[in-house]
Amino acid sequence: MQDIFRHIDDHNDDAIQSLIDLCRLPTVSAQKRAIAETAEHVAALLRALGFETQVLPKPVLSEAEGREGAQTGGRPSGHPVVYAEARGASPRTLLFYDHYDVQPAEPLDLWSSPPFEPALRDGKLYGRGVSDNKGNIAARLAAIRAWREVRGELPCAIKFCIEGDEEIGSPQMEEFVAEHRELLAADACIWEGGGVTWEGLPQVVLGVKGLLYVQLEVGTVNRDAHSSYGTVLPNAAWRLAWALSTIKGPDERILIDGFFDAVRPPTPEERAAIEAMPREDAETLASFGIKEALLGVRGVDYIARHLFEPTATIDGLSSGYEGEGPKTVLPARAMAKMDFRLVPDQDPHDVLAKLRAHLDRHGFADVRVTDLGGEHPARTPVTDPFVRVMRDAIREAYGAEAVIVPAMAGTGPLYPFIQTLGLPTADCGIGYPDAHIHAPDENIRIEDFRRGTKAIAALLGRFGAS
Amino acid sequence: MQDIFRHIDDHNDDAIQSLIDLCRLPTVSAQKRAIAETAEHVAALLRALGFETQVLPKPVLSEAEGREGAQTGGRPSGHPVVYAEARGASPRTLLFYDHYDVQPAEPLDLWSSPPFEPALRDGKLYGRGVSDNKGNIAARLAAIRAWREVRGELPCAIKFCIEGDEEIGSPQMEEFVAEHRELLAADACIWEGGGVTWEGLPQVVLGVKGLLYVQLEVGTVNRDAHSSYGTVLPNAAWRLAWALSTIKGPDERILIDGFFDAVRPPTPEERAAIEAMPREDAETLASFGIKEALLGVRGVDYIARHLFEPTATIDGLSSGYEGEGPKTVLPARAMAKMDFRLVPDQDPHDVLAKLRAHLDRHGFADVRVTDLGGEHPARTPVTDPFVRVMRDAIREAYGAEAVIVPAMAGTGPLYPFIQTLGLPTADCGIGYPDAHIHAPDENIRIEDFRRGTKAIAALLGRFGAS
Repeated sequence: MQDIFRHIDDHNDDAIQSLIDLCRLPTVSAQKRAIAETAEHVAALLRALGFETQVLPKPVLSEAEGREGAQTGGRPSGHPVVYAEARGASPRTLLFYDHYDVQPAEPLDLWSSPPFEPALRDGKLYGRGVSDNKGNIAARLAAIRAWREVRGELPCAIKFCIEGDEEIGSPQMEEFVAEHRELLAADACIWEGGGVTWEGLPQVVLGVKGLLYVQLEVGTVNRDAHSSYGTVLPNAAWRLAWALSTIKGPDERILIDGFFDAVRPPTPEERAAIEAMPREDAETLASFGIKEALLGVRGVDYIARHLFEPTATIDGLSSGYEGEGPKTVLPARAMAKMDFRLVPDQDPHDVLAKLRAHLDRHGFADVRVTDLGGEHPARTPVTDPFVRVMRDAIREAYGAEAVIVPAMAGTGPLYPFIQTLGLPTADCGIGYPDAHIHAPDENIRIEDFRRGTKAIAALLGRFGAS
Repeated sequence: MQDIFRHIDDHNDDAIQSLIDLCRLPTVSAQKRAIAETAEHVAALLRALGFETQVLPKPVLSEAEGREGAQTGGRPSGHPVVYAEARGASPRTLLFYDHYDVQPAEPLDLWSSPPFEPALRDGKLYGRGVSDNKGNIAARLAAIRAWREVRGELPCAIKFCIEGDEEIGSPQMEEFVAEHRELLAADACIWEGGGVTWEGLPQVVLGVKGLLYVQLEVGTVNRDAHSSYGTVLPNAAWRLAWALSTIKGPDERILIDGFFDAVRPPTPEERAAIEAMPREDAETLASFGIKEALLGVRGVDYIARHLFEPTATIDGLSSGYEGEGPKTVLPARAMAKMDFRLVPDQDPHDVLAKLRAHLDRHGFADVRVTDLGGEHPARTPVTDPFVRVMRDAIREAYGAEAVIVPAMAGTGPLYPFIQTLGLPTADCGIGYPDAHIHAPDENIRIEDFRRGTKAIAALLGRFGAS
């Protein structure tokens, strides 16, 4: 592998430049920006490495599904998927799942440099998407380029499935995978994320939480009123605050009836895996400028809570006058965005129905709930043979043992790969915990990018031989 | 009076044009716009009617007061006051209190025509400030012009005190009045508002509620986080929602300890006055597109609640992601604006201290409270002899009996006039209930403007003879 690794070292600057070019495209799926342009840019990069590519639409909802969607508030339609495939020395096929879209860059004033003008500073690259997930696309292409340019032939067959709306909850991804089951057939799957721990140890993540993302809206009167009417007119902001307070209390208990019913306790092997994980709570808390986690959890309790517990999060609030100084107004409308991170076997549709029933039962039938997207949670067993191949590849690239993480706290569309395609699925990437993903000053460390690229290259070789 | 009334009829278009010119100035005190320009414009209008004018600064806080202000969060410094005086046939002096500033125009997209380009449609004039309070300034000047041009001499001495920050809570107005006690000496005071009921009956309001306006802010972590950290990181939006829910419950009860301690029950005469008031709850509710008031109050109970009960109102909420679509973010900061309408003898400083203590006691010491302004409540007794003069003038102008309102639901700086100057104080104006003050599409009816001008003209005559 040293010849391959040397190529990666020699061409790391090229790969970073390619990433910079990719991140100049402001591919914010929530705002439908630069979608077609980015899909074509990514497809062209793959063609240059000998892949056959297709830009495939997400399935259109049938009328019946459309009606069902409407009942739960409707779902956005999907952006196209970039599919690519190339043969290799071995018939064993590795499928990469990535996404070419990024999160919105707001609030813009908290960025140290413009989010869509990637900037190198102090061994780091800053910009929206440099980590999540364009950075991983660029590293994977650099690893493949090394195999191509050093050996000519790839060590295994490779497929890519790169979607354009992961950051808005991957609408119709489950349907897309089901519809393209044969096209996407493979022996294992590497998905979007991954990287090193606070201590710099490479880690392999085997699962994700699910997600339900909703918008709550209240309208009371037909227009904003003078606030002296607070005596007699209903205030949308108060209705929203009270409704939210019924969903979770200051003790962090989620109060929706039946919310925890489908939660499956972690297996003994999953418990053992988190016991072996490094304790990173102190570093995480310090990075966010605080001393204590919610409920004071520490060590393995912190990890267990972070990886195995579902959440209820307010993502945004808006109502009435939000400008400078005082304005005495009684708001006619109020809005909250919320997400629920789900664990196996919670189902986003079921949680949505329970949220609706909860609000109705607590006297908040006036709070409108719009479904902005959902995903199922999923996990690959820590006992799967593919996990062994991953460990070996990572030891080769990093000279260190991989930390095995049975599930991460975040969400990704792992469910269709694990469940529908039946693939063992893991991550292997270039990120680190202080990457500020989804936040201002998203960044990667150039050295992580270089080592992450080598890990992918090593995995291709070992997987072809496995 | 018919000669005066005829002049008012003949020159009503001039007066409306003068109002349009005045409302083209975007005098938003909360945003410090067009302040000096408007003060000079108003002073010039008064000089043209034979007044001597001065543009006087609000008092500067002493170091000790500044420190006290800082402890409660600090108060904005005041804009200048336009003072004017003119002699008349009688030595009796009537003081007009008005304000040349207006509320912010946001949300701009809900206006049918631009807020600072006043537009005539269907017998109404639309624009920010056409009612509150530039319309009343224009009507008072038109009444004075009629006396000047028809009779030459004014029937009584007149003073004007026109401030520039009523809409941000009249900072330092109490100090200004105390400091200029002799300059402002008079026998009675007419203040800014007034007009007719839903049924078109002229009304005289004798009091105001007080106000405490605060901004609540929570900061938890040092930057917005990926929402998967909802397991372990404190969320500013949740902290705010929970804190707000401790202040008032869905049953509309205000839960701050001691909040009602200083509330003085209305006198028998005040009770009798509201019994004689027309029932307007159905019209008000219909105008706001709803069928039932909070708690289902109706008729005299609605009036009693609206005029004699204090409030706790959320005026605005802001946190996290407020744009289109989903963004999975855990907000580091959250903000609410709130106002409390107070009744005699509640004190805004006392209520602020009680709010702070309440939040601390309920575990919300992390919620920062900034004082954005306060005013004391005040009422003129319904039994004062000046109320009789008002009734007579209004009967002359409208041919109808005035409705006597012991206090309005809104706020104004009446306290220094009633308390410091010792003046009976009432309103007499050109508004109507559907004027949308403080909201999009603020408007007046041209006929109300004409009759309101006549009422002021009649009052000048009767007051001079009283």
